[in-house]
Amino acid sequence: MKLYGYFRSSASYRVRIALNLKGLAYEKVPVDLVKNGGEQFSDEYRKLNPDALVPALIDVAADEPAVLVQSLAIIEYLDETHPKPPLLPPDPVDRAFVRGIAMSVACDIHPLNNLRVLRYLSRQLRIDEDGRNAWYRHWCEQGLGAIEAMLAKDKRVGRFCFGDAPTLADCCLIPQIANARRVDCDFSAMPNVMRINDACLALDAFAMAAPANQPDAV
Amino acid sequence: MKLYGYFRSSASYRVRIALNLKGLAYEKVPVDLVKNGGEQFSDEYRKLNPDALVPALIDVAADEPAVLVQSLAIIEYLDETHPKPPLLPPDPVDRAFVRGIAMSVACDIHPLNNLRVLRYLSRQLRIDEDGRNAWYRHWCEQGLGAIEAMLAKDKRVGRFCFGDAPTLADCCLIPQIANARRVDCDFSAMPNVMRINDACLALDAFAMAAPANQPDAV
Repeated sequence: MKLYGYFRSSASYRVRIALNLKGLAYEKVPVDLVKNGGEQFSDEYRKLNPDALVPALIDVAADEPAVLVQSLAIIEYLDETHPKPPLLPPDPVDRAFVRGIAMSVACDIHPLNNLRVLRYLSRQLRIDEDGRNAWYRHWCEQGLGAIEAMLAKDKRVGRFCFGDAPTLADCCLIPQIANARRVDCDFSAMPNVMRINDACLALDAFAMAAPANQPDAV
Repeated sequence: MKLYGYFRSSASYRVRIALNLKGLAYEKVPVDLVKNGGEQFSDEYRKLNPDALVPALIDVAADEPAVLVQSLAIIEYLDETHPKPPLLPPDPVDRAFVRGIAMSVACDIHPLNNLRVLRYLSRQLRIDEDGRNAWYRHWCEQGLGAIEAMLAKDKRVGRFCFGDAPTLADCCLIPQIANARRVDCDFSAMPNVMRINDACLALDAFAMAAPANQPDAV
């Protein structure tokens, strides 16, 4: 596997966790989202991924290696092609629960605080750093608060978001918490979220995927 | 099936298309996102979905009817429990392609122009209507432009995003185009996107799911 990503990109972080949980070796190809206005906008990278976003994955062992994009699509691919250990439970209702948490992060929180959006707030809308941080915190606290409410009332929650083994939901939740910490998000009303975060970070698969442990970390 | 949604919510629109493509009958329960500050914030609705977002689906025919949230998680559930006609192709690489397009819409475009975000721009950041429309257009044109580039270079694209039958990708793409039209997005460089939009809207499943054809349309 060949993973194009950036150490601080939480979408890349999700895929790193999934690859580690699956025990799959992979080459890390750093795409610096900051340097020179962003390497993701280079012609070379755009040829791979017209969206100019990370991550992108190439399964070099496949018969016809294709470029896969979108972190959740990539993780579903990994789960379908390397089923052990599973990142989704077998029952459709349970799968919807796990995917629902994953997508609460990927569709409702993360898109609002990624780099390109913060840049638009700053450059086009002239929002200062305090305003940008308040925006970032607002969506993190609202979104993670909603996930806390879902976790608090559901009997399927265990050591992790679903039962006692990590799933796609945990792959998404933990990177989002790392982001939220960077803007001093208030986690005091989120005991389940925090407990699951601790349980995940105690696992090598999560710890090794953390931004600080990547070769391109600055 | 019981679908909690709002006529203009493009995430609800996606699920309506999927239910129609599957030929599944469903009861529509309107949740007015605008009236009285938004019915999604009522205690009653929050009990169903703590995220206070639409859509939510209850499969009343299931053994233990659960509330399912997040449009893409719901559509995957429908595809798993009612496999005909399939909304995802059988091959994992092709599934990743279809999911990639769906998630480009659901993770990179739609979250930036839904109602709660436009409200934050207006109320907290004091961005005027022109500024909000420019923001909306920016993310639509950038995101749909990237999807156009993906569609233009891929041989798997047919009458629809993948081959000659609608998939999850089309369920997401068409509602986003409806949104983009509302802010006069420039589609002139998107021939594939527009061709697929026309092909979809010619189908009853898509036409019947359109916002204007919902009972709560105003």
